[in-house]
Amino acid sequence: MLNKVTTHWKGNKQFEADNPNGKTVLIDTSPEHGGHNSGLGPKAMMLASLAGCSGLDVVSILDKMKVKLSDFRMDTYGELTNEHPKYYHKVTIEYHFYGENLDEKKIEKAVDLSVEKYCGVMEMFRQFADVTTQNHFHSS
Amino acid sequence: MLNKVTTHWKGNKQFEADNPNGKTVLIDTSPEHGGHNSGLGPKAMMLASLAGCSGLDVVSILDKMKVKLSDFRMDTYGELTNEHPKYYHKVTIEYHFYGENLDEKKIEKAVDLSVEKYCGVMEMFRQFADVTTQNHFHSS
Repeated sequence: MLNKVTTHWKGNKQFEADNPNGKTVLIDTSPEHGGHNSGLGPKAMMLASLAGCSGLDVVSILDKMKVKLSDFRMDTYGELTNEHPKYYHKVTIEYHFYGENLDEKKIEKAVDLSVEKYCGVMEMFRQFADVTTQNHFHSS
Repeated sequence: MLNKVTTHWKGNKQFEADNPNGKTVLIDTSPEHGGHNSGLGPKAMMLASLAGCSGLDVVSILDKMKVKLSDFRMDTYGELTNEHPKYYHKVTIEYHFYGENLDEKKIEKAVDLSVEKYCGVMEMFRQFADVTTQNHFHSS
């Protein structure tokens, strides 16, 4: 399968990226790099891709397992190298699950399936970074 | 440097990712995967990160070189493997530059500096994909 994304310069340090279904995202830099923070920086967007990919797997698998969540969030941390080109060499994803009487075993299984089998973005990250995952359960 | 992105499940297949300066992006899947196309897919977002990273380098370098563009766009193509986990094994970026009497040598130099030296996202992509770049000049 071939994915295509078109990324258009909007002036100054702002870019708009869109895929063929017409959805767009804004990319920008912070004022110290001459931008206006009107969108995510490209490296932050990499972390959003990673969390989005794994999160989509997890909610799809939990849906099939009939596990209900009241809330779900991922905090993703990426440590950049000091030298150019700066890339992430350490990445941590903290999965935070909220709900009543959470079935922790099933949720752990869903995360494992994403991390080990399904999440293509995770597989790409493993080629350049040490990736660590942690599950946090907030049962009510 | 440590980057942090928080990615929040919004229900169904939709996620919203934000970084500490408060900017957000929406992630969703296509209807055939149960989503509503309300945002970019996570793998498309990877290509947006790559183009955004290199595009920011190029406009910053060309600004220092006093090279003016009337328009600038990147078309990025990523070919996914057939088997899970699906990752990009071939990626092509087509840089399209528009302007009057474009200084092609300086623009090529700017692209080369981004590709070879500055773009951290490109460095990450090189760890899992064959990355090819092409420059297209549209001088008026």
